Amino acid sequence: MNDIESQSLVAYLGPAGTYSHGALLKFFGSAQACLPVAEIPDVFTSVELGESIYGLVPVENSTQGSITATLDRFSTSNLTVLGEVMLRIQHCLLVTDKGIEINKVVSHQQSLGQCRNWLKKHYPAVEKSSVSSNAEAAKIAAEGKGIAAIAGETAANLYNLQVLAKNIEDIHDNTTRFWVLGRNHQTQSTGNDKTSIIISTHNEAGALFKALEPFQRYDISLSKVESRPSRKEAWSYSFYVDFEGHVDDSQVQAVLAQLKENALGVKILGSYPAASV
Amino acid sequence: MNDIESQSLVAYLGPAGTYSHGALLKFFGSAQACLPVAEIPDVFTSVELGESIYGLVPVENSTQGSITATLDRFSTSNLTVLGEVMLRIQHCLLVTDKGIEINKVVSHQQSLGQCRNWLKKHYPAVEKSSVSSNAEAAKIAAEGKGIAAIAGETAANLYNLQVLAKNIEDIHDNTTRFWVLGRNHQTQSTGNDKTSIIISTHNEAGALFKALEPFQRYDISLSKVESRPSRKEAWSYSFYVDFEGHVDDSQVQAVLAQLKENALGVKILGSYPAASV
Repeated sequence: MNDIESQSLVAYLGPAGTYSHGALLKFFGSAQACLPVAEIPDVFTSVELGESIYGLVPVENSTQGSITATLDRFSTSNLTVLGEVMLRIQHCLLVTDKGIEINKVVSHQQSLGQCRNWLKKHYPAVEKSSVSSNAEAAKIAAEGKGIAAIAGETAANLYNLQVLAKNIEDIHDNTTRFWVLGRNHQTQSTGNDKTSIIISTHNEAGALFKALEPFQRYDISLSKVESRPSRKEAWSYSFYVDFEGHVDDSQVQAVLAQLKENALGVKILGSYPAASV
Repeated sequence: MNDIESQSLVAYLGPAGTYSHGALLKFFGSAQACLPVAEIPDVFTSVELGESIYGLVPVENSTQGSITATLDRFSTSNLTVLGEVMLRIQHCLLVTDKGIEINKVVSHQQSLGQCRNWLKKHYPAVEKSSVSSNAEAAKIAAEGKGIAAIAGETAANLYNLQVLAKNIEDIHDNTTRFWVLGRNHQTQSTGNDKTSIIISTHNEAGALFKALEPFQRYDISLSKVESRPSRKEAWSYSFYVDFEGHVDDSQVQAVLAQLKENALGVKILGSYPAASV
């Protein structure tokens, strides 16, 4: 990203040492000025209010699925997705001292889910408790008291913890996908882009099928379709769709024109270079 | 359900006073023998091992979306869905005494999400913490210590709490849908049924479109399409599809036959009478 300067503050789900922090470093580099915030919606708010220039949020994990707090926040936000980061997530079990007896495991809800089988095998009778982030969990574990945290190695270093077990995630190509957010930011087509949109459909039989038909006709690959409650009416849904291509491509423009005819509404979240792990 | 006897033990997400408990009473009646368990996967396990005859699990909320712990547990379970319950969810803020100063709000993750805006407006600076169920939250609130719980009125009565605020959910037709589970249970067609299946697709462009095409051709209404990570390979998905009709209907049989040709796999979770709120 040539046009991003290290003075441009980036908001992310903190505290320091979260996987979001790791993704931020991967995308922007370690010289970047960054602002840890407490919750995913706060990342959006920080960018919307101009406190930060960019924001970084998790959007999907390959084992646990979509981060619904991120998807749902777009229903009231006009921020643009301008980049994507893929980060391999390798969880560790962290403790103050390898000899302590563990009476509780804390972590983010998502991480507990990603290590469910491992925890069941190794700590079946131990209480599991979810907190707002992995780094928050590491902070709590650092107080001792028999509490272990699931977090990454960065957090182990930051909070002076020992790694009791490594790579404890149930599925080993466990990867989280993040989005970089900005205001009215337009990206150039690179030839290897993705576009993300939200389609609101009429609440009728075959609405999703009709919405997907133009992609089929113009031979555009969908990488993801996710339904979320519309929050307007019970049992009506919005569809979050990611596909290959850039909004400047003529094929993509043809699909979007068709979609606008078939669907109740189409919101373009952004086009951005596709990331690799 | 004529063939269900009150002696048939039903496992549900306890403790007593959860919305799952409310759904169980709505479906089976108050004379039913029931077994509270600690987590959603435990409901499945209890029925699989024959400890309980039936199980009851939440599957979807109209505001917050799918209960992924329920959907994902079907990947390793052969239980059948034999019934559906719809329950209006009206959240209350519960405290030991209306005069106390609240320094923490506890509830299930889903309920905190369903009341997100209300909490932001009324208790912006107060810590929110997620626990395993609403009734568990009520139990914790009952200890006093300035902790309030989000739960239903049943929990208020059970744990001797006062209702500080009522109907605090952000969207007022907030409804949760539950499934009743059994082993190899076959239901008769009633003329107003739903069928739930999981479709595994080839990891290729247009796979979902191809999977939905037979429903369109045979004019069968989809009530829900949800994608979940396949847990076999990163970024490959399974699709949970609910549609109108019973597996004994000839149209449905035609669709399923077509699906089996197009898709990698089709798993039928069950056909069951459609519920109303």
